[in-house]
Amino acid sequence: MTSLSISDGQPVRHHKPTTAVILAAGLGTRMRSNLPKALHPLGGRPMIAHLIETAKSVFDRIVVVVGPDMPALEKAAAPWPCVVQTERLGTGHAARMAEELFGDGDVAILYADNPLITEATMRMLLETRRQAGVTLALLAMRPREAGRYGRVVVEEGAVRAIVEWKDASEAERAIELCNAGVLCAGAQELRNWLAALGNDNAQGEYYLTDVVALAAREGLVRHAEAPADELAGINSRAELATAEASLQRRLRNAALDAGVTLVAPETVFFSADTVIEPDVVVESNVVFGPGVVVRREARIRAFSHLEGCVVEREAIIGPYARLRPGTVCGVASHVGNFVELKATQLGDGAKANHLTYLGDSTIGARTNVGAGTITCNYDGVFKHRTVIGEDVFVGSDSILVAPVTIGSGALLAAGGVITEDVEAGALALGRSRQINKAERGRSIRDALRAKKEQG
Amino acid sequence: MTSLSISDGQPVRHHKPTTAVILAAGLGTRMRSNLPKALHPLGGRPMIAHLIETAKSVFDRIVVVVGPDMPALEKAAAPWPCVVQTERLGTGHAARMAEELFGDGDVAILYADNPLITEATMRMLLETRRQAGVTLALLAMRPREAGRYGRVVVEEGAVRAIVEWKDASEAERAIELCNAGVLCAGAQELRNWLAALGNDNAQGEYYLTDVVALAAREGLVRHAEAPADELAGINSRAELATAEASLQRRLRNAALDAGVTLVAPETVFFSADTVIEPDVVVESNVVFGPGVVVRREARIRAFSHLEGCVVEREAIIGPYARLRPGTVCGVASHVGNFVELKATQLGDGAKANHLTYLGDSTIGARTNVGAGTITCNYDGVFKHRTVIGEDVFVGSDSILVAPVTIGSGALLAAGGVITEDVEAGALALGRSRQINKAERGRSIRDALRAKKEQG
Amino acid sequence: MTSLSISDGQPVRHHKPTTAVILAAGLGTRMRSNLPKALHPLGGRPMIAHLIETAKSVFDRIVVVVGPDMPALEKAAAPWPCVVQTERLGTGHAARMAEELFGDGDVAILYADNPLITEATMRMLLETRRQAGVTLALLAMRPREAGRYGRVVVEEGAVRAIVEWKDASEAERAIELCNAGVLCAGAQELRNWLAALGNDNAQGEYYLTDVVALAAREGLVRHAEAPADELAGINSRAELATAEASLQRRLRNAALDAGVTLVAPETVFFSADTVIEPDVVVESNVVFGPGVVVRREARIRAFSHLEGCVVEREAIIGPYARLRPGTVCGVASHVGNFVELKATQLGDGAKANHLTYLGDSTIGARTNVGAGTITCNYDGVFKHRTVIGEDVFVGSDSILVAPVTIGSGALLAAGGVITEDVEAGALALGRSRQINKAERGRSIRDALRAKKEQG
Repeated sequence: MTSLSISDGQPVRHHKPTTAVILAAGLGTRMRSNLPKALHPLGGRPMIAHLIETAKSVFDRIVVVVGPDMPALEKAAAPWPCVVQTERLGTGHAARMAEELFGDGDVAILYADNPLITEATMRMLLETRRQAGVTLALLAMRPREAGRYGRVVVEEGAVRAIVEWKDASEAERAIELCNAGVLCAGAQELRNWLAALGNDNAQGEYYLTDVVALAAREGLVRHAEAPADELAGINSRAELATAEASLQRRLRNAALDAGVTLVAPETVFFSADTVIEPDVVVESNVVFGPGVVVRREARIRAFSHLEGCVVEREAIIGPYARLRPGTVCGVASHVGNFVELKATQLGDGAKANHLTYLGDSTIGARTNVGAGTITCNYDGVFKHRTVIGEDVFVGSDSILVAPVTIGSGALLAAGGVITEDVEAGALALGRSRQINKAERGRSIRDALRAKKEQG
Repeated sequence: MTSLSISDGQPVRHHKPTTAVILAAGLGTRMRSNLPKALHPLGGRPMIAHLIETAKSVFDRIVVVVGPDMPALEKAAAPWPCVVQTERLGTGHAARMAEELFGDGDVAILYADNPLITEATMRMLLETRRQAGVTLALLAMRPREAGRYGRVVVEEGAVRAIVEWKDASEAERAIELCNAGVLCAGAQELRNWLAALGNDNAQGEYYLTDVVALAAREGLVRHAEAPADELAGINSRAELATAEASLQRRLRNAALDAGVTLVAPETVFFSADTVIEPDVVVESNVVFGPGVVVRREARIRAFSHLEGCVVEREAIIGPYARLRPGTVCGVASHVGNFVELKATQLGDGAKANHLTYLGDSTIGARTNVGAGTITCNYDGVFKHRTVIGEDVFVGSDSILVAPVTIGSGALLAAGGVITEDVEAGALALGRSRQINKAERGRSIRDALRAKKEQG
Repeated sequence: MTSLSISDGQPVRHHKPTTAVILAAGLGTRMRSNLPKALHPLGGRPMIAHLIETAKSVFDRIVVVVGPDMPALEKAAAPWPCVVQTERLGTGHAARMAEELFGDGDVAILYADNPLITEATMRMLLETRRQAGVTLALLAMRPREAGRYGRVVVEEGAVRAIVEWKDASEAERAIELCNAGVLCAGAQELRNWLAALGNDNAQGEYYLTDVVALAAREGLVRHAEAPADELAGINSRAELATAEASLQRRLRNAALDAGVTLVAPETVFFSADTVIEPDVVVESNVVFGPGVVVRREARIRAFSHLEGCVVEREAIIGPYARLRPGTVCGVASHVGNFVELKATQLGDGAKANHLTYLGDSTIGARTNVGAGTITCNYDGVFKHRTVIGEDVFVGSDSILVAPVTIGSGALLAAGGVITEDVEAGALALGRSRQINKAERGRSIRDALRAKKEQG
């Protein structure tokens, strides 16, 4: 069983402890949002969480640089330490905020708005840094449109310079290799270069990029080339949507490669932590929120929405099924249309096929839950559990007022309001007797119509 | 608060009154439809309505040229006047039908099947016409595939000729600038040129395009270049779908730019009049029909469908929520899965989270509407209202037979059929007592199974 | 009335009986599936069924070559005969397995993993074979990326050779025309060439492609060029999804050309056998499973899911409607949100608009089915029918315990459990009287809250 996300889970050890510094102080003005940029979600988790999840597989320690008044971001970063950049004086200044936490091993500077950088790319960066003679390694990329990115000038395998677009000659602008901003160096060297940065520029900011020139004077700078879609910055809602699409493509391809049928991959939305086994069939228009596991040969039908749940093998879910957190659908169980399950264990072979709400419930194996069944799990203040045994027949439109327990083999007649426990094998009824009044239907309708005609 | 459609709403005044003539007589044979082409909808409103909406921001008056027997189209054009083209003798003939309504200011000729032309483009056309010495202005475009469009020959900034594809030389066919058919001239000049048009061609039709040659003889013809996707004609269902996609892209980008998160923009469908504020999150697969307003920090979850409603700030709608016209969801209210609201005011902080139909209702603040609640608002002839106070607990599977009023703080026990008013703070019950019959469940099932085995 | 699939249905006769041999023994290892590759579905039917459906319009006889232990595949091929290839010794060997069933007319070799090949292409292959002097005809294509396909060397209109990629010179690799593997020849010649095939190659397999060289020695080999998307092989889930997308594009375009409005074609999923008439409107996010017919001017609203049903003209279905097999929705009937119909005939003008399950039912014309209505069609062992007459008013939350019959013009009061038949024009009630207890609602809530505060 593997998640759609790829990780081999092994930090690179056998060196001094390494540190990833994540710059996450950006407000993201162009997002036009009250939420710090690094907290906007991708694939069901905040951008910062993607970076932390990936970085902790490669580095020994993580430090996050946040802006002032971002308690939610600090909470998302925990247990990793945060340092606060109180003034906005550029990326070089932001990196320097973390220098006391650099340790004495290699330090990589990452960006909260590059959340899709992969483990493989982080390792490649670290390995490039460790080549003989290399004092600084940086990531470069070849975006489809190089635009105003700084260009990486490489001669004989070594980075000679990073030329900002506005300072670049025509020849330099023709270079396709662009600077992604991500770099890695030894802690002490990095401290020294950061201390040497100037802010003699139009913005009066300290640019991390200027570190490269300092490093090139002292030793060898090498680049590693990474896929551009891992390093595309996220500065607007449109770029956020583009990154989400990029992540979804990655997750869909991983599912297909794992032997999952996606009838219409472009209509299926995964979370970064979705786990899905071979020979599962996922029809069109399915949403996997965080925390979903689907076992072999289950079928997720169209228009279904799953979060925090386990679907066991051969189960059939949907169409129009909603599984909420805490739900487990047993082997070969069925959940049908317009059915919501919340914190409910549905037994092997059990069925809830139509217009039903089961909350805080345990349903035994092979039990059939009729159409329109509702568990009243909430009394306005407390939540209560409903426990139903095996082989129970829950008649349609049964209202189960929790806490309530139904014994195995019981039969609940349709339309009953069940407020008391039912013993195994018993029949429970809770409905009024039908009364027919001849001709009364017709006369009521005639009276209504007459009233309408009178206006 | 701004709609996704861009308008600054100011007609260009300070001249003689201007007139937009919209040619809408086309049957649209290739649509294979009984509906006049101009009535086919885009973004939730008929093509003709898009043109009128845009044109009335730029021009003082609008005239629509319709075909015979198109009363629905005339109704859609109202209050603007329509003239009927009884014979199908070409675009020049169609424009001439409206000449008595040209007035004496500038007249632009537009087409019902170019509904995506923007206000900016209309203004540009009018301003080009008003440049010194210009007798006629026309719109040109550079479509991705120029195909059989007429080519616009420009010399020294002036349009020399429009060459029809079939008459064009190789060199002329290589011209990328194509004629969009839309033009603008003074009323009297246009009348004169239209009167001078001949129909000496294979179809025996009067072509509006021929006006350009007449205008070029008398003065300066200038073109304004507009984006090709605004001017792509709609002659088939496939082209209608392409135009819809183009409009949706425009509306999605406007939402993203306004600070709205669209998790999967390509799965969200807006109407042209959708209003949506910053920091709203829209999940995948959401449809906005006409007349929807969504306030700051509301969240519209997956698979929701909204029409003619207001969603106040911090409300959570869906997944699988359907809001129908006349609905207002209060601040921080919740509407959950498989819930339909029609002409219903849901109070601030109120909740209707599961399998519910509320029609013609008023629900007070903080009221909790249980799963499976249904308002019986229709007696087969009349519709009636349901009024529920604040802080009411509506038990699951409550059936509210309207007209009915429930006082604040009341409690409706689950499964009741409520036909009479309930006072504030009261408890209402309307259900039968449960009866359990030991072993009867088992014996009924055994009997059924025995019957099945007997065949 | 035409299906979205194009067929003129006439086998090419006036020759000796022709035979299509479909090679379907592949395990599809890269699919990572327990299902034989040829049984994976596209457009709602197995790949093998597409080929059989198309081939039987062109050829007189079909033979399928299957692998050992594929009983489900043999069943899907029936009534056409299958032969089993017990050893996996290559395509030449597979074709030879069928030689006793070649007959004496022309034989074409097709592949189960090219299910999208059209009737037109099959006819073109057969006609190419029948040109004067041609001993063998083969299909060629120009894929977007020629990659490692064998190249077809053509000189003066005749195929000189097929050069495998690994054996090809630079010049040969530059050839865009690729071998699709599909070929056609006379039965006896094909038998002779198959018998002459060697397996002197790295894999030790008999390659069908080698037949081309043998044929070229004895006579003329000609190629017919077919669209590459018809012949793209399906070897992985990703390629399966690509083929599904290709089929859906074909079906959507056929619907648009037929005069159907698809508001967002890319969100509508058809089955290969969907039948849909002009002036039907299909909104976004609609799934058509197998066996659906939709008549003129019906509207299928967003998020609907249809299988095995007929929707008569002017009916309105959805949003969120699910129609299951055996359902017929009458002229101008309405099926609304969160409504499921299974094996149900809904009469002309009848309505079931909200949160309803109708199974195994007949509903008369103009009958109004209230919100929350449920037919209890299943007693845990048997299924039973519900029959409702014309002009009946079924009150909301009616529970109909089948078998049960409701006469025309009857009125069922809301919330009733209907277990007995109701005569025409009668009123049926089955609910408890409402009891209000003053202040009890408040006191219950106060008690609960007090309990909560005590913890």
